[in-house]
Amino acid sequence: MEWKTAIAEVKENEVRVRGYGLQDLMGKLTFSQMVALLLKGELPSPEEHILLDAILVAASERGALAPSALISRQASAAGSPVHSAVSAGLLSLSSETGLAVESCMFKILETMDLVAEKNKSLEEAAMEVVAATVGAGGRLPGFGTTAQEPDQVSTTLLELVEGLDLPLAGATGVIRALEVALAAQLDRHIPVNLSGAMAAALCELNYPPEVGNAFFLMGRLPGLVAHYVEERVREKPGRVVDASAVSYDGPASRELI
Amino acid sequence: MEWKTAIAEVKENEVRVRGYGLQDLMGKLTFSQMVALLLKGELPSPEEHILLDAILVAASERGALAPSALISRQASAAGSPVHSAVSAGLLSLSSETGLAVESCMFKILETMDLVAEKNKSLEEAAMEVVAATVGAGGRLPGFGTTAQEPDQVSTTLLELVEGLDLPLAGATGVIRALEVALAAQLDRHIPVNLSGAMAAALCELNYPPEVGNAFFLMGRLPGLVAHYVEERVREKPGRVVDASAVSYDGPASRELI
Amino acid sequence: MEWKTAIAEVKENEVRVRGYGLQDLMGKLTFSQMVALLLKGELPSPEEHILLDAILVAASERGALAPSALISRQASAAGSPVHSAVSAGLLSLSSETGLAVESCMFKILETMDLVAEKNKSLEEAAMEVVAATVGAGGRLPGFGTTAQEPDQVSTTLLELVEGLDLPLAGATGVIRALEVALAAQLDRHIPVNLSGAMAAALCELNYPPEVGNAFFLMGRLPGLVAHYVEERVREKPGRVVDASAVSYDGPASRELI
Amino acid sequence: MEWKTAIAEVKENEVRVRGYGLQDLMGKLTFSQMVALLLKGELPSPEEHILLDAILVAASERGALAPSALISRQASAAGSPVHSAVSAGLLSLSSETGLAVESCMFKILETMDLVAEKNKSLEEAAMEVVAATVGAGGRLPGFGTTAQEPDQVSTTLLELVEGLDLPLAGATGVIRALEVALAAQLDRHIPVNLSGAMAAALCELNYPPEVGNAFFLMGRLPGLVAHYVEERVREKPGRVVDASAVSYDGPASRELI
Repeated sequence: MEWKTAIAEVKENEVRVRGYGLQDLMGKLTFSQMVALLLKGELPSPEEHILLDAILVAASERGALAPSALISRQASAAGSPVHSAVSAGLLSLSSETGLAVESCMFKILETMDLVAEKNKSLEEAAMEVVAATVGAGGRLPGFGTTAQEPDQVSTTLLELVEGLDLPLAGATGVIRALEVALAAQLDRHIPVNLSGAMAAALCELNYPPEVGNAFFLMGRLPGLVAHYVEERVREKPGRVVDASAVSYDGPASRELI
Repeated sequence: MEWKTAIAEVKENEVRVRGYGLQDLMGKLTFSQMVALLLKGELPSPEEHILLDAILVAASERGALAPSALISRQASAAGSPVHSAVSAGLLSLSSETGLAVESCMFKILETMDLVAEKNKSLEEAAMEVVAATVGAGGRLPGFGTTAQEPDQVSTTLLELVEGLDLPLAGATGVIRALEVALAAQLDRHIPVNLSGAMAAALCELNYPPEVGNAFFLMGRLPGLVAHYVEERVREKPGRVVDASAVSYDGPASRELI
Repeated sequence: MEWKTAIAEVKENEVRVRGYGLQDLMGKLTFSQMVALLLKGELPSPEEHILLDAILVAASERGALAPSALISRQASAAGSPVHSAVSAGLLSLSSETGLAVESCMFKILETMDLVAEKNKSLEEAAMEVVAATVGAGGRLPGFGTTAQEPDQVSTTLLELVEGLDLPLAGATGVIRALEVALAAQLDRHIPVNLSGAMAAALCELNYPPEVGNAFFLMGRLPGLVAHYVEERVREKPGRVVDASAVSYDGPASRELI
Repeated sequence: MEWKTAIAEVKENEVRVRGYGLQDLMGKLTFSQMVALLLKGELPSPEEHILLDAILVAASERGALAPSALISRQASAAGSPVHSAVSAGLLSLSSETGLAVESCMFKILETMDLVAEKNKSLEEAAMEVVAATVGAGGRLPGFGTTAQEPDQVSTTLLELVEGLDLPLAGATGVIRALEVALAAQLDRHIPVNLSGAMAAALCELNYPPEVGNAFFLMGRLPGLVAHYVEERVREKPGRVVDASAVSYDGPASRELI
């Protein structure tokens, strides 16, 4: 019945995370470095650091009508405290709305295994994985956007991965091969979505699939918080949030300087 | 019934957050800069950036026996997906375990108001706020640690705030004045805890109290994820997690280089 | 560190609840009798049984635009499984929307204590409790309806309590005295709401206040489930639920025969 | 964008559920009759009524070490309000611990369809469904208990269904045929579990599969509440709940009279 944890050691008045004193990390690490330390056990290289931030930023916001944001707002309006309201929002997430990262990572690794162990070409391996999934009536996780066209955020994330000086394992190549195989199988183009792009990025960073969906959650949480707070400070308590009556009145389009 | 949001504008295939194209922020912003953009509308200064990271890092981890970690693990063992398991963990948080940031921020602002508007000294104002809270049978939010001695993480956070070159509003001075007043009122020393230190730091950064507890949630989430994943990849599915049988087997004590 | 539970004993292939074999209760107890057995340790009398059912029925449904129903629907539309979707709905509940039963029960017991121990009249005791609550800027839990007029469900529940042949402890008298005292204090009539009526009924049944809000949850859950299921079987997956566009198309008004 | 609900009509100060005034149902319906009215639109027959109660009672309690109970207790100890604590418990449920009712109902209906439309014998249909599920590497939902022997509660529920004077659709016959086919396929006996027995019972009652798991939730909630309350009134706040240190001190074994 004995069990072990390698995450943190807690002594009287001291928390050591992966060996480091928590108080020694404050003021020295960015939050995404801390995420890497917690989830992988070691600090990321500078290039990995940039990519981790980009992954989290990519997942952060989708507007007031994303179901998870709408629910966090409605719970805020009804008087829930922030941890309840954002949990309600997180609970509405599904494989359709961000939580297909893990299953897409498994598909990428399965394809890589076919190449490495069965001596198949990447194209053959991708066709085999797609056929086994789609042929059995399933959907290929990581593909398909509402607009049925490549989504800018996903495209940017894949380009970022490929542009960084990382010792690439080839996951972006695999996701593109899966996209080609899927189009061939279905006879129409289904673009990579954010789950798919995040899956490729996290495979390049050598994260295990089991952690994939959590990156979506960690990235998404600040967006849900923003909607919770805006509802609370700007709207009348107790209202029913009418999804058909919202418009944007924030800053005009601008560029980072 | 019309309502407005200033957080994001979503057009076909484009998300603009506070005016910036989301894809233009990827690879350029750290995650904590994104948090600031979402919650405050503008990017933080370099000094504010360091402090935001320190706040989030401070909240991230407390070991496998923190109730929220234990619950995330037990839900993981029972087969829950990550968004359910970490939501279960977040739902166990209370004002005793991190969620007193908001109410402490209100106490700090109330004290500042007494100084600014009623022409009181900081000491008088702090005594008045403490007396009104503790005298009515309440607890002063932001004070009290399990060990009843200053906790290293909270102490480090307050020192960081004071060491940074920020145009300080005086919130750390207020929290220290409240600590002195509380000791005087109760005739024993109750140290500032993490909620209190975070409250002072967020007041210095001019965040509204309504966002206070969310910083604890955002910081804490990666720690809960780490326990969810470790349970899932390291333990037998379906087990009952025995809180009395855990020990640490991670890296030995080490220092950042 | 040893601790005890008096709820159930689990042996290999047998669950005994409060001493009874679970399988022996099936087919013999109604669900509300089981609720009583679990929460109080004994089976209710026939009159108590009727009242328990009435309490649970009273809490069950408030239409598609109640925030908790709207959220369960939106989570259903987004693809969440039922336990996540209804939890999201439950998490939006607050003291404004059903969860003031516990705090109202404490007020009723406090009033009764003043009568029993301080030799006050019910009117004096009620005035004292109301003054201490409302005078300190608080709201009296269990009072106030959206329409600012007595709500039929709450009125019916109180009448039911008074019509049953129970050895009444006087809680309905107390809630009515609190209503009169509140009107006197505020100079306008604020009617008892469902939390207040449930609180009086549960005090008559000798339940502890700590169980009060749970009766609202248990009663409300089937209503949330109904909205989750209707959304799933009747609407298009993935939609944004528009609160301004719903109308009723169920059975016309009818009477129980 | 217009949409309809047939559950309830809410007018000023009146809620009509499936056509009946909510206040007219109070004192007349049991809670399980209300569940049927909400989820199916009509009141159950007396025999259906008994079965509904038995289903809900069967799901209600599994002791303090069931993961969902342990989590509700730990959240209670940490200071969470009841709706948060029991939601945390519900979120730990999975297809391994009660939530396989829906998927088992789909398997029962699939088997029935093969008999009705493809002119197969029940045995052939059951073999075909089992082979398609287990052969593809899946598990057959509704089968398998911890003890690997028939569980008393599940057995009792199936016997109850068969003993009632219902116009049986044959679902209990199907579940038993699936059990035989599964044993033949795997060459060892895997008994029906509670999800399977509930699935058969709900198919006999003509509920749609989409409502299956919700019956487990509704039945389970009072058990979670009991553990939340016992923790709160009996234990020291803030403790870490040690799963290895609990024993039972409730009533001795007794029989219903």
